[in-house]
Amino acid sequence: MKVVITGGAGFLGRRLARGLLQRGTLSDAEGRDKPIEQLVLVDVAPPADLIDARVQPVVGDISQRSLLAGVIDRRATSIFHLAAIVSGMAEADFDLGMRINVDATRSLLELCREHGQRPRVVFTSSVAVYGGGLPATVREETALTPQTSYGTQKAIGELLLNDYSRRGFVDGRALRLPTISVRPGRPNAAASSFASGIIREPINGEPAICPVDRDARLWLMSPATVVGCLIAAHELPSDALGANRSLNLPGISVTVGEMVDSLTRLAGADVAARIQWERDPKIARMVSGWPGACDASRATSLGFPHDESFDDVVRQYMADDRTG
Amino acid sequence: MKVVITGGAGFLGRRLARGLLQRGTLSDAEGRDKPIEQLVLVDVAPPADLIDARVQPVVGDISQRSLLAGVIDRRATSIFHLAAIVSGMAEADFDLGMRINVDATRSLLELCREHGQRPRVVFTSSVAVYGGGLPATVREETALTPQTSYGTQKAIGELLLNDYSRRGFVDGRALRLPTISVRPGRPNAAASSFASGIIREPINGEPAICPVDRDARLWLMSPATVVGCLIAAHELPSDALGANRSLNLPGISVTVGEMVDSLTRLAGADVAARIQWERDPKIARMVSGWPGACDASRATSLGFPHDESFDDVVRQYMADDRTG
Repeated sequence: MKVVITGGAGFLGRRLARGLLQRGTLSDAEGRDKPIEQLVLVDVAPPADLIDARVQPVVGDISQRSLLAGVIDRRATSIFHLAAIVSGMAEADFDLGMRINVDATRSLLELCREHGQRPRVVFTSSVAVYGGGLPATVREETALTPQTSYGTQKAIGELLLNDYSRRGFVDGRALRLPTISVRPGRPNAAASSFASGIIREPINGEPAICPVDRDARLWLMSPATVVGCLIAAHELPSDALGANRSLNLPGISVTVGEMVDSLTRLAGADVAARIQWERDPKIARMVSGWPGACDASRATSLGFPHDESFDDVVRQYMADDRTG
Repeated sequence: MKVVITGGAGFLGRRLARGLLQRGTLSDAEGRDKPIEQLVLVDVAPPADLIDARVQPVVGDISQRSLLAGVIDRRATSIFHLAAIVSGMAEADFDLGMRINVDATRSLLELCREHGQRPRVVFTSSVAVYGGGLPATVREETALTPQTSYGTQKAIGELLLNDYSRRGFVDGRALRLPTISVRPGRPNAAASSFASGIIREPINGEPAICPVDRDARLWLMSPATVVGCLIAAHELPSDALGANRSLNLPGISVTVGEMVDSLTRLAGADVAARIQWERDPKIARMVSGWPGACDASRATSLGFPHDESFDDVVRQYMADDRTG
């Protein structure tokens, strides 16, 4: 079977690719385990650290239809659509966000429709689809009122995926990803970048800036658990999600203060002291519009994995990814 | 001031045009009444029965950007965007619905953005944005889970209008129109066409087919009240809607049986006997996915007009529009 990951050279795409290569198989449309013969990783850069005969890197811009058309063919029966312009960048460059987050998503779905194979499409949406005056716990029945262009674009992607699924063009599954923490590597243009930076940089011996207050509440998930959820979403039978193919994932709800407490407990007060508190009103406003907790009972009842605590998340980073 | 109505030759567009011409003025961005000097009616056909020196018909396809670009200029400070592919047709022709309901809406918003005048844009959405397992009364906090391509496309239009408004590109107001009854004229391709036909045709001495059961519940509004709501939406100050610019209108909640009871009361049993009950499972399924009642308290508190009863709606049709 041929599997495609867009954004396949990104942090999450590479982890997912490694997870799939280790696993070796995925369900086909009839629920039978099939070996992954080809894993196409589409991104603006090649996936540097993935050496495997099954991996085929495709480098280019997914907003160019010809690039996607060369990848989304009749044999591509499983597609993980992760490529996106992140929140901060989509807010800074509206047109770029629309082109990648909306237009490329639509092109991808159109190519699936043209080929008529009804592939499984796992789409990474975000809790940024929620916003405004939210209840303390957001439910799947809560209206999507995004307060950022990124959230708007992801909500449009969800609507398209649902309608393309309803019409039988694809077999879609949209996951509303919590903020991912702790991401390894460098800060990125996401407004949520600090949610990894305030743990990662201090552990690696570097200073970090925290642009929000201690009582800011986040809905988080560790990288390993996100990868587990992406695979679990793919493996669901077609009818498991019914008419609503958008799913809240089981994150953990913590304040920034609690995150720093975990860091202090596990790495020491001197490490946590590397955090500088410099409030950025723009980031604080975007973050305050995101939900601090979501009802993910549907995903939980479908068997999706979850993190046990933020202490566990910090331990996972210290064991697997620390560079300092 | 220059006012543009897309779909201006349609049933609702012509009524709105007549209402605006009679009224003579609209609020400008500072809330001052300004005379309507030019009223541009864009549609695939000219508005046959509107003779007024202020009216400028523009005939063409709004999915052609050049047509819209000739209309949405710096002087167009008030835009009523009514043009749409209706539900039944958007379900039958997916690409046509996407082109008009999504792409043309986006082009219109982009042209507003380019001109930088932040025009007031009144967009007709629909209760078809709701769907699936709905509560008995739908609220503005209820998630949009449309079960038709039309509803999906209108929900995307709302998301775009909200984000373009948040970014200051336009000053948008989206109205979720109830099913309009009684529309004059002929049946159309909307799945809800029967909601007018079962009143209109019997009154005009013709047979009508009712494709749903007596207990099907509809959320209705009369044509005159819809026009009143469109104008009320335009006249709201920019900050009246806050961060959520999508508004449920105050319809009336009636079953098809209650509608026929009104017809019997006001026109007689022999007239109501012209209805033939022939259930159409496809239409019945689409209609059952729409809300039978919505909480419209926000619109009511903002002073939007509403119908008093379905009897009143039937009386309005018999007084103004009957042709038999």
